[in-house]
Amino acid sequence: MKRIFETVHPWKVVQTKIDHADNCPAESVTSLGNGYMGARGNYEEYYTGTTLKGTYIAGVWVPDKTRVGWWKNGYPRYFGKVINAPDFLSFDLYLNGQRFDLAKANLLSFYREVDMKTGLMSRKMDVQTPMGVLTIRSSRFFSCAQKELACMHYCIESHDFEGQVRLETGVSADVFNTDANYGERFWNVERVLAQDEMLQLTAKTHENHFGIERFTVCFTSWTKGKGYEEMHLQTQDNWTKQIFETKLVPGGSLDLEKYVSVTTSRDHAADRLEAVGETLLKAALNEGLDSLEKKHCQVWEDRWQMCDVVIEGDEAAQQGIRFNLFQLLSTYDGSDARLNIGPKGFTGEKYGGAAYYDTEGYCFPLYLAVAGPDVARSLLMFRYNTLDKAKENAAKLGLKGAFYPMVTFNGEECHNEWEITFEELHRNAAMVYAIYCYTKYTGDDSYLRTYGYQVALEIARFWVSRSTYNAQKDCYMLLGVTAPNEYENNINNNWLTNYMAKWCIEFALESLALAGKEISEQEAQTMREVAAKMYLHEDQEKSLFVQQDGFFDKELRPVSDIPEEELPICKHWSWDKILRSCYIKQADVVLAFYYFPNRFTMEQKRANFDFYEPMTVHESSLSPSMYSVVASGSGRPEEAYRLYQRAARLDLDNFNADTEDGLHITSMAGSWLAIVQGFAGLNYHGEHLAFSPKCPAQWKKVSFRILYRGRLLAVSFDRNVFCLEVVRGEALTVTVNGKDYVCEDKIELTL
Amino acid sequence: MKRIFETVHPWKVVQTKIDHADNCPAESVTSLGNGYMGARGNYEEYYTGTTLKGTYIAGVWVPDKTRVGWWKNGYPRYFGKVINAPDFLSFDLYLNGQRFDLAKANLLSFYREVDMKTGLMSRKMDVQTPMGVLTIRSSRFFSCAQKELACMHYCIESHDFEGQVRLETGVSADVFNTDANYGERFWNVERVLAQDEMLQLTAKTHENHFGIERFTVCFTSWTKGKGYEEMHLQTQDNWTKQIFETKLVPGGSLDLEKYVSVTTSRDHAADRLEAVGETLLKAALNEGLDSLEKKHCQVWEDRWQMCDVVIEGDEAAQQGIRFNLFQLLSTYDGSDARLNIGPKGFTGEKYGGAAYYDTEGYCFPLYLAVAGPDVARSLLMFRYNTLDKAKENAAKLGLKGAFYPMVTFNGEECHNEWEITFEELHRNAAMVYAIYCYTKYTGDDSYLRTYGYQVALEIARFWVSRSTYNAQKDCYMLLGVTAPNEYENNINNNWLTNYMAKWCIEFALESLALAGKEISEQEAQTMREVAAKMYLHEDQEKSLFVQQDGFFDKELRPVSDIPEEELPICKHWSWDKILRSCYIKQADVVLAFYYFPNRFTMEQKRANFDFYEPMTVHESSLSPSMYSVVASGSGRPEEAYRLYQRAARLDLDNFNADTEDGLHITSMAGSWLAIVQGFAGLNYHGEHLAFSPKCPAQWKKVSFRILYRGRLLAVSFDRNVFCLEVVRGEALTVTVNGKDYVCEDKIELTL
Repeated sequence: MKRIFETVHPWKVVQTKIDHADNCPAESVTSLGNGYMGARGNYEEYYTGTTLKGTYIAGVWVPDKTRVGWWKNGYPRYFGKVINAPDFLSFDLYLNGQRFDLAKANLLSFYREVDMKTGLMSRKMDVQTPMGVLTIRSSRFFSCAQKELACMHYCIESHDFEGQVRLETGVSADVFNTDANYGERFWNVERVLAQDEMLQLTAKTHENHFGIERFTVCFTSWTKGKGYEEMHLQTQDNWTKQIFETKLVPGGSLDLEKYVSVTTSRDHAADRLEAVGETLLKAALNEGLDSLEKKHCQVWEDRWQMCDVVIEGDEAAQQGIRFNLFQLLSTYDGSDARLNIGPKGFTGEKYGGAAYYDTEGYCFPLYLAVAGPDVARSLLMFRYNTLDKAKENAAKLGLKGAFYPMVTFNGEECHNEWEITFEELHRNAAMVYAIYCYTKYTGDDSYLRTYGYQVALEIARFWVSRSTYNAQKDCYMLLGVTAPNEYENNINNNWLTNYMAKWCIEFALESLALAGKEISEQEAQTMREVAAKMYLHEDQEKSLFVQQDGFFDKELRPVSDIPEEELPICKHWSWDKILRSCYIKQADVVLAFYYFPNRFTMEQKRANFDFYEPMTVHESSLSPSMYSVVASGSGRPEEAYRLYQRAARLDLDNFNADTEDGLHITSMAGSWLAIVQGFAGLNYHGEHLAFSPKCPAQWKKVSFRILYRGRLLAVSFDRNVFCLEVVRGEALTVTVNGKDYVCEDKIELTL
Repeated sequence: MKRIFETVHPWKVVQTKIDHADNCPAESVTSLGNGYMGARGNYEEYYTGTTLKGTYIAGVWVPDKTRVGWWKNGYPRYFGKVINAPDFLSFDLYLNGQRFDLAKANLLSFYREVDMKTGLMSRKMDVQTPMGVLTIRSSRFFSCAQKELACMHYCIESHDFEGQVRLETGVSADVFNTDANYGERFWNVERVLAQDEMLQLTAKTHENHFGIERFTVCFTSWTKGKGYEEMHLQTQDNWTKQIFETKLVPGGSLDLEKYVSVTTSRDHAADRLEAVGETLLKAALNEGLDSLEKKHCQVWEDRWQMCDVVIEGDEAAQQGIRFNLFQLLSTYDGSDARLNIGPKGFTGEKYGGAAYYDTEGYCFPLYLAVAGPDVARSLLMFRYNTLDKAKENAAKLGLKGAFYPMVTFNGEECHNEWEITFEELHRNAAMVYAIYCYTKYTGDDSYLRTYGYQVALEIARFWVSRSTYNAQKDCYMLLGVTAPNEYENNINNNWLTNYMAKWCIEFALESLALAGKEISEQEAQTMREVAAKMYLHEDQEKSLFVQQDGFFDKELRPVSDIPEEELPICKHWSWDKILRSCYIKQADVVLAFYYFPNRFTMEQKRANFDFYEPMTVHESSLSPSMYSVVASGSGRPEEAYRLYQRAARLDLDNFNADTEDGLHITSMAGSWLAIVQGFAGLNYHGEHLAFSPKCPAQWKKVSFRILYRGRLLAVSFDRNVFCLEVVRGEALTVTVNGKDYVCEDKIELTL
């Protein structure tokens, strides 16, 4: 763990000094986004320190030529890549003709904040130059009120500075992806225009041989302001800029506002992008920065009304959970069903792809509760709309039904590592789980009856075709799988995978009945048989579910036996050593207790938690939070709190030492789950919405809000009292610690 | 199967027509080499058809930047690559100023042969041109008498051709590797010189950041002859050539001899390469082509005296075995202990690296018997000399002792595919097996006592540290391995691996005693314990050795159940499907019967052969031959012959449809083993050299020669008579079909 910024603030990410050594993590945690586009917190100025420049537009991607060591049949032809969009955030400053390099500047003061309440980033710094002292203020936001719009403010004030100032800003397509497999550039500039004060650059993603749509994006920019003597335009092949010049004297200032509209062929006809962009931009100019900012902030305010989590008595935890919610909602707000929750959002390049099963497995319950059923349904539709691709994907592997991809933009698999791509079957179960979850939580089975049953059926068919009948033991087995614990590869009969497969098939059969659809009796019979005879290895005596065949043949030792300097093992041990060890990367067997808390006894939960957790190295960002949820449900409150600690500030405290690459967006849902499903014990699997609150001893009080069946509910609890308020909507019956209560407006229960 | 050249000849590879569609396989089977250098059978002329240009110099390689999809700890930093050397074999022909393109030429006749008896390639073709008919004759050899020398002859005769002829030949470093990971070129030209008629080009392998030695190679070339009017020299950055011009009239000819010396910094000081090369070349020019050729041919004649195998009654089989011996001895002749048997020899790029465990596992017994103990000892020394690197390799994986690489030039691992690089442990056993084999066959334990015990000890240490104690079953297990059957990855307790590990440890302890060396009693005790308690899963009832944990949980079906169009499965099935199937890539469990024929009962051999062979797809070039050896020893003569058929002409008949990439050099040893250890039943594991001949019903008679403890023995047998002759050396006692005989000069036994 290494806290990135020292200051802890309940609503803000605050940076009080510039740190060139750790600039990349700082850029990551100051990322902004509005679901449509976003950027890392790159400094506006020229910067020769270590930096990862990144501006991204949702859904704009390219298929990069796959890079593999050794080709395997079934590998996808390309790897879909989030690409770094042309840069429009830079302000290149020259003082007396000398380019200002922030990495080498003499800063008298530095302050930057991202205000999570409002979604604004602002910065102020005092700079000592040979010509005197300057104050530079800047701010930016990606409008949540008008998604295609980004606004910036950049202002230089002279304290006692006297000299020539030149400020260049515009749009530049001279950008690259550091993770391009073969160092290729991904943009072809189609047109560059500079007219009056308006700049326009239209670029198209480069040609590909994979039959993948090319995207055209038009950037229309206009920078205006006061304090300059001269402004002229300059344009080259792949950039265009406005150049402002002035002689600055003490007390003088140069104050610019920049408006950029970003229009793409995803939303408009390619030949209309310039016109639409210009219209948008001119309206924005007319409206002015203040008004635009106000509308943007209002959106965030409304969001927080619905989703805020308040932790009293622990400011770091408070900042952590708000940061996670802020970043999740900056990444995905459900307004575009073609999009999904990218694992790095708009904060980095790594991983590529936009949709992982993290969405269905972990983020889904959160969006359902804080963004509402429509947004959740958009996520479900993403998978329904790519069902055909999932069927193709199964067929590629010689299987029936549908196999959803590990990583994708458009439903086609992008990932190529056989032990994962071909063998991580459990992701398919997450697709069905989200449908189940939606139906259970909303009480609305219309999605299931119309679309969901089709997805469930094709996935059930996949499980049936993927299973192997074992005559000797008269059961069905899943051979050659990799489970959530990716520190085991190509194993047989992972308990969780088998359990979920069985559940998926049963759920599909129920869904079909509900939807009034039929399959052949022979197929139904086979499905019932496979589900009934799915091999589930349980050590009855110890109440343990056996992670996989042969797991007990390993040398079973706790993580505490590993010398400190060998952790994380993924960075210190060779892969074979990891594989043959007992050590578990992330929650595996115990995930079943998160998915289905009501299907297991407390004894089973405890036995497995107590057995597996000590062998878990938590080297996935999702592990501690999932274990925390499970610990809460297994009567292990101290463990739940300990594990929550590791999850909640994963990026703010750079726990995995890789925040420089970007944020762990999807994992952020885990900390919310640890609070809401863990500490509060929210449970929607039974007849009524239920809670079993257990406030950590270290906290004074926890409060949060959720949307539930047309209501906005406010929940709060400390160690003694549980309180539920219907902020909006009708009365409801809730179960608290096993007892039912009718809540008209508010109930307060002593625990 | 697709026979590459129709004509079958007992001593020659004969091509009677040019086939542009299948040029690459043709180039492969017409490759030549002298152990020091070699080349694919590329045509001399400019050729716009599909071709894989390839000239290679043994031990001259570069570390190419590794290409992986997803990095794993422990992966090597580079992949050692055999590089395509500057080209000195081309003769570029211009007729009336028009470049002659062999791919588009109108050929009236075409004949090419590689004479395996002499190691000469020669070609004659009649070409119809607009200016009349020409006859082109060419020949080449890489001198086996003087390794640094290559000689060519190129002659154009006019039948009724009248026109201007220009012929350009020299040395060109404008070459590339098709398998370069990032398309890089690997040569930097240091100097180019053209003086009198001598050309000299000195090139150095490109810089690398891996601390790997760079090689400098000097090519000195002189082409002389008669029939030209003018000769001039031309030189550029990376090539130099002589240009011969003449006006050819009917009956006239242009007749050139080219001499090239190739000197490298592996053998000479880098600053002496030019001088040495020039001296060598001038001596060769003085001696003349005829004399050089005669000496070269004499070497091959002497070789065949020692190693020829004669199969009467089957010309295709005859050609096959000679081709295999020819290519093996062209690749490696033991004169340089720094070299090893590259899997593609001088016939292609694929695989990289020079030493695989194929050498110890399969080629070693052949070299011992046909090239003698000194050559075999060179192979052993290669591994002894790289013991330190093997220890480093084990340490990288967190293990003790020595772990020999999968692929290497200098002892350092080059391969990067975790399931192979880290988990194919059985290769380590092959290193020990070769020592055992040498000692048993020669009766000379000096290598074992001086060097071998050290290798055996470090390998035993590796096995001990790699094994996991299982308290429940009180045994030692090898978890997470990939066995010879690479269609299973990351399995537990592969029977063969465990068996070999146990044997290795026992052998190391015996070797130590023999060498009079001691290890601590504690370590010795641990070794004894691990060997004694190594887990060996046997199904007693069925006499089956269980390939791995869980193998019997698979659906066990014969290969005959796979639809024809899905074979080979490696080209049609996705990797996960292959992995969870029962299908076996190549001999695995049954290899133990090849390694240790005397340690198993006939019942065991038969049961396992009959069980595993029908599930084996033989998708490794080594599989059929190994199974054939085992079938012979398991009383399955018809199976032995059927499998031999698949092995013997693997490349000549392009069985695996990949001969275009180059020849399967190390696999070629398999067909010899199938004859000598299989059909003849040669066995050196007991007290006396033993035979148990079983001549295939389809053959009239088989004869071969072997070196054995200072003797040259001639063995021949048909279905009725076995004959052994001591061609050179003392009398010996042999066991034939279990009975001992003293052979003074010759014995003839009725079977």
